[in-house]
Amino acid sequence: MKHNFGAGPGILPHEVLKQAAAGVIDFNGTGLSILEISHRAPEFEAVLNEAVKLVKELFEVPEGYSVLFLQGGASMQFAMAPYNLLPEGGKAAYVESGVWANKALKEAKNFGEVQVVATSKESNFTYIPKDFTIPADAAYFHITSNNTIYGTQMHAFPKSPVPLVCDMSSDIFSRKVNVADFGLIYAGAQKNMGPAGVTLVIVKDDILGKTGRKIPAMLNYQTQIEGGSMYNTPPVFAIYVSMLTLNWLKSKGGVEAIEKENKAKSAVLYEEIERNPLFKPVCATEDRSDMNVTFVVNNPEHEKPFLKLCDEKGIVGIKGHRSVGGFRASIYNALPITSVYVLIDTMREFAEKNK
Amino acid sequence: MKHNFGAGPGILPHEVLKQAAAGVIDFNGTGLSILEISHRAPEFEAVLNEAVKLVKELFEVPEGYSVLFLQGGASMQFAMAPYNLLPEGGKAAYVESGVWANKALKEAKNFGEVQVVATSKESNFTYIPKDFTIPADAAYFHITSNNTIYGTQMHAFPKSPVPLVCDMSSDIFSRKVNVADFGLIYAGAQKNMGPAGVTLVIVKDDILGKTGRKIPAMLNYQTQIEGGSMYNTPPVFAIYVSMLTLNWLKSKGGVEAIEKENKAKSAVLYEEIERNPLFKPVCATEDRSDMNVTFVVNNPEHEKPFLKLCDEKGIVGIKGHRSVGGFRASIYNALPITSVYVLIDTMREFAEKNK
Repeated sequence: MKHNFGAGPGILPHEVLKQAAAGVIDFNGTGLSILEISHRAPEFEAVLNEAVKLVKELFEVPEGYSVLFLQGGASMQFAMAPYNLLPEGGKAAYVESGVWANKALKEAKNFGEVQVVATSKESNFTYIPKDFTIPADAAYFHITSNNTIYGTQMHAFPKSPVPLVCDMSSDIFSRKVNVADFGLIYAGAQKNMGPAGVTLVIVKDDILGKTGRKIPAMLNYQTQIEGGSMYNTPPVFAIYVSMLTLNWLKSKGGVEAIEKENKAKSAVLYEEIERNPLFKPVCATEDRSDMNVTFVVNNPEHEKPFLKLCDEKGIVGIKGHRSVGGFRASIYNALPITSVYVLIDTMREFAEKNK
Repeated sequence: MKHNFGAGPGILPHEVLKQAAAGVIDFNGTGLSILEISHRAPEFEAVLNEAVKLVKELFEVPEGYSVLFLQGGASMQFAMAPYNLLPEGGKAAYVESGVWANKALKEAKNFGEVQVVATSKESNFTYIPKDFTIPADAAYFHITSNNTIYGTQMHAFPKSPVPLVCDMSSDIFSRKVNVADFGLIYAGAQKNMGPAGVTLVIVKDDILGKTGRKIPAMLNYQTQIEGGSMYNTPPVFAIYVSMLTLNWLKSKGGVEAIEKENKAKSAVLYEEIERNPLFKPVCATEDRSDMNVTFVVNNPEHEKPFLKLCDEKGIVGIKGHRSVGGFRASIYNALPITSVYVLIDTMREFAEKNK
């Protein structure tokens, strides 16, 4: 039994994996694998429709928004957002809360002026910048809701006078969000929603079509909306597994229920990090992420032996990102609280051994 | 038992499906699913390296070429090719041999001048245009090796004075190709190489970096080469299944062996279409595809009952594309010749019943 604390591609529910494996052999009694079925087959169209419906239901997506399943990950959205929203000679505003936010704003620079309204770079992104003004003349305002590498999370979203664009890759569906506050939400699936290879996009229809740019069809949200995410062959299996995962989330009581569980998981883990004399947290208390819990050892010599003990306990994916060091426990939706307790017990056992 | 003649996503080898399903539960004894493992895990890096190695080996890719696994399908390549190869104010030359070729050249028009050197549009693309001159001042020359919808295939490739760019989505790995003749080859995996959600790109390194364009990182072949197809999270599972499929191809004797099988399959099927008084072929004899065999009934009233009989025999995916009508038997690498014989027997039984 492994306890998968990996940062992404991350843990998926056991039931989902079983269903997905069965579908690889025989998809819904068709006698064909989900891997070799036409994307135009009614059985797959039903999967895609169900996935869209589940997103709308679980995330309470209001009228006037389109839900898309695209390819290329958040990194492709870093370019698609300005391609679709930033007119020639226009300006976009960004908060730089980590390396991914930085990559997003760099891509926007290919398309126009970028104003970085706030950054926490000087502290290696250990907090969420909060003191900023959103320029009213920006085409849009871009934020990152959760910073996977550092373990920070935006617990309140700014009210924006211009369309709010948000990369939610690492905390989508982990907590309630008021979609109506956003112009564009995007998320690579591989943390809280499914396997790598599909990207969720939720876009407010009326912010599109205003730049006058020639946009390649695949990168044009309007083309993708018109094609119902099937302008070309979609990533069939990744959408299927996302649908299964969303369905699992619904069966667990939806976003509100999982948010409570996620809060419980992060609370006990941060408590142990605070309490245990061998460890300490990395980030500003008020900005700590409920998805990626980062911590370090007080004595650098404890790092390797602790990793070794984790390995013995079946704990995987706990090593921190190289730019932060230490440890990172990613506790996504599918990670059971029992795995968090195994990690806590391991931390205690380690402290006991190293008194 | 189904006989999957679908045009794509198409049939995959049974052994591959079994291995893929096993990997969804436990990937190579890691105790984790291939769907929830980090793309930076050594176990997955080994998969990606093996996939690249198999492409190079099976397709005899010479030095100076890079092999990439990207997202977005051939449709994304329709835009990536001109983005990377067509300078501002430059010109690209295209052969219009079908709807997909037409989509490719339309995308190029977003980036510069497009010269269509030949088209078979006037005959609904029932043949491959052959009488053309490739302009020496073009940045590149674009062709489509196999036209899935119509069932035509370029059996000989033109010698080009400028980089030859080829969409091989529907016949990649079905026959020997001299890669050195090409500047850029691309193919959506979902016909002959794997599941939907990954795109193979083989690009000659020295044709890149010459346009001076600002290219979004994800769309820049050089960024993807530098990142080893891992500039961002790749479509892990689709790459895994592609690797398994390429490995299966190797175990079958490689491209040369499968080419013989493919020729044998298409030969017996075209023979039956010619022989059977109820059916007739669609395309010019010399341009008939060994991958997608199109045919129609002489009496339109026979169409529905023949489809019904096919359905009874477990034959799926045989209905022709709406723009051609009739039938299309896609006989990709993984389709066994026994399935072709089942189709032939069904055609004979149908002719017997309708004498």
